[in-house]
Amino acid sequence: MTRLTSWVESANSADTDFPLNNLPYGVFSTNRLEARCGVAIGDMVLDMAALEEAGIVTIGDDPVFDVPYWNDVMEMGSDTWASLRARLIELLITDAPEQAKVAPHLVPLSEAELHLPIAVSEYTDFYAGMQHAKNMGAILRGSPDLPANWLHIPVGYNGRASSVVVSGTEINRPNGQRKAPDAEMPSFGPSTRLDIELEMGAIVGTGTPMGHPITVDEADALIFGYVLLNDWSARDIQGWEYQPLGPFQGKAFGTTISPWIVTAAALDPFRTPTPPREKQLLPYLDSTVDGLYDIELTVSMQPEGAVAATTITKTNYNRMYYSAAEQLCHHAVGGCGMNPGDLLGSGTISGPVAGEYGSLMEISWAGRDPFTLTTGETRTFIEDGDTLTLSGHAQGDGFRIGFGDCAGKIVPAVEFP
Amino acid sequence: MTRLTSWVESANSADTDFPLNNLPYGVFSTNRLEARCGVAIGDMVLDMAALEEAGIVTIGDDPVFDVPYWNDVMEMGSDTWASLRARLIELLITDAPEQAKVAPHLVPLSEAELHLPIAVSEYTDFYAGMQHAKNMGAILRGSPDLPANWLHIPVGYNGRASSVVVSGTEINRPNGQRKAPDAEMPSFGPSTRLDIELEMGAIVGTGTPMGHPITVDEADALIFGYVLLNDWSARDIQGWEYQPLGPFQGKAFGTTISPWIVTAAALDPFRTPTPPREKQLLPYLDSTVDGLYDIELTVSMQPEGAVAATTITKTNYNRMYYSAAEQLCHHAVGGCGMNPGDLLGSGTISGPVAGEYGSLMEISWAGRDPFTLTTGETRTFIEDGDTLTLSGHAQGDGFRIGFGDCAGKIVPAVEFP
Repeated sequence: MTRLTSWVESANSADTDFPLNNLPYGVFSTNRLEARCGVAIGDMVLDMAALEEAGIVTIGDDPVFDVPYWNDVMEMGSDTWASLRARLIELLITDAPEQAKVAPHLVPLSEAELHLPIAVSEYTDFYAGMQHAKNMGAILRGSPDLPANWLHIPVGYNGRASSVVVSGTEINRPNGQRKAPDAEMPSFGPSTRLDIELEMGAIVGTGTPMGHPITVDEADALIFGYVLLNDWSARDIQGWEYQPLGPFQGKAFGTTISPWIVTAAALDPFRTPTPPREKQLLPYLDSTVDGLYDIELTVSMQPEGAVAATTITKTNYNRMYYSAAEQLCHHAVGGCGMNPGDLLGSGTISGPVAGEYGSLMEISWAGRDPFTLTTGETRTFIEDGDTLTLSGHAQGDGFRIGFGDCAGKIVPAVEFP
Repeated sequence: MTRLTSWVESANSADTDFPLNNLPYGVFSTNRLEARCGVAIGDMVLDMAALEEAGIVTIGDDPVFDVPYWNDVMEMGSDTWASLRARLIELLITDAPEQAKVAPHLVPLSEAELHLPIAVSEYTDFYAGMQHAKNMGAILRGSPDLPANWLHIPVGYNGRASSVVVSGTEINRPNGQRKAPDAEMPSFGPSTRLDIELEMGAIVGTGTPMGHPITVDEADALIFGYVLLNDWSARDIQGWEYQPLGPFQGKAFGTTISPWIVTAAALDPFRTPTPPREKQLLPYLDSTVDGLYDIELTVSMQPEGAVAATTITKTNYNRMYYSAAEQLCHHAVGGCGMNPGDLLGSGTISGPVAGEYGSLMEISWAGRDPFTLTTGETRTFIEDGDTLTLSGHAQGDGFRIGFGDCAGKIVPAVEFP
């Protein structure tokens, strides 16, 4: 893929997350601007509502950018997505004729407060990382054997959309029920096994009506873009509650996403195939597209007051067994209607070896093997004051398509009852 | 509770679902009126948008009834709910001074098309019927023993809001993956074990912010009202997919609710306590309110072309172990934010004896014991063309608080891929 250069000089740095090739979509406010749609370019954000009001970008009969979500744009469909991206490149590329008209509508990112980029319709979380599934089986059920359905179904469950928050939002340690294996009765209180899950989130851009299944290729075309996603998990609460109906309150106290939707168009040059199938999938899951992406991912942990964060995981989204398009196809196959703004968590991304694990449950092997931070402190699970940060980018030749941080700090549990 | 009489004569019949004591809230349209809020009274529906436009009912600065959902009214809070109900009684009671002004805004129910009464924010389904849990354990896991957590946690899982439809909506038999116990590989196709679940749905009227747990008593006060709810279930798909993360596509092809929200205020005289606790609940689940209601429930089945429906179940909502308020408290206790329009399914309501079971899985004991309809046909699960109808009411002295039917007809699966 050709590297594009911009008259916004900071976008031409090799290590910016937001070169002209990226153009991710977010929602921002400043102390004089209400929350509205914006596009990141270098260290600036382009005020889309202002561009629209000035008549520089127009994509519909009614204004669509002066709102705190991209859902209206997503609903307009993929032709609109393509023409919007083309128009933005035209406006921001080096020597753009309209540079002087656009420049006044750039706001320094340092002055912008970032918000959720979409109104989350519903949130579904999948379980598509094979190493993670094997590790969790070994830890929770005593065997690394995959569940019987795992090689046939992109296993998933419905999560809680109201708990999805943008990077930077503090998360209260949840209270909940848990029972130690040797205890006779459960108890109630703050989780003592608080964890992350390193995931990607796929954002459904256009929906499907109820009763209308779609192929994997069709599903791929409905995906607007991707974010980083941290599916915070309280392992003690989850372990006690999840039989027989799955995770509930152990996953409902917070799910953090990165603030910028990196579009499928920007990621297109970095597509990679899913790995060879260990068992042939049923024909409804056939596809002709490479549904994964080569996205390098890291997780870091920084205790309160520590001068630096410690990288605790490095892995890649290309490790997954199922793509988001396969997951979306399976999601809709029984007739479930999908809507713009539906968020699909990939499942925890763990590579095949230690150092590539995407949860503390795996890194500390359920708390048995503490790990050491650069500060000298040790951890098994998260302590109050710890900040966990997910980062990721696809590496091009001289540029990268970055996501911006997906960070959250854990603060003490609220007192209850 | 005193029976109230109305100048709308049909509301004074002992067997109407909608006497003046009820006043349930729905959304209707006619061939000349767009979908809007309405209130059922006898065999009529009161056009709330018209009453508001005429200045007869005003509850806020902006119009709230000329929209196809009650969410705006719900968000206004319980004082508004109470004053609205008082105003409606004042307008509709026998010898009401404003009768002549109100009468022109009554529309015959026979001319009204009914829609979902709320915009469903999120849908959560619980598992609070003890007999159902024991039956399902016996059928699915070989033991009627309750799951270890069941007597401590109002067990629930997140469902799919986009699949919630109003009574009368046809439901396609879902396609999906299933695997017979003796098969080596799963197959894909129409479900062959299609079932109902007889439930009540509680509608959250006012929300709670993220990170703010609530007591059971506080939760009770947030519930706006109740509907009948049929959580259609594909047992073959569910059985293959549900380990380890719970039900997903086996429950995502349709959830039917009755069209009228029967308010907590109307049901208040019919409150009943939860049954004695077999194990003491943790203190966060303590309450001072009687959270269940004495609501008689029936399910009928009618094959295509049959002259009459056959009643296949009679039971009562007072059979449940956990109340909706307990479920809502548990839902929010870890910090999960709740929103107006959240729908909480009670879980399948099965009484302690055969004849009171709320699913075909239990009635036919997983298909082993076919039952006979009045037409002479037999059934184990649902066949194409069958209509399943849930009905329910609380019985007062000379009146009843009814819900209207919660009906759905199963039509053939769509061809896919």
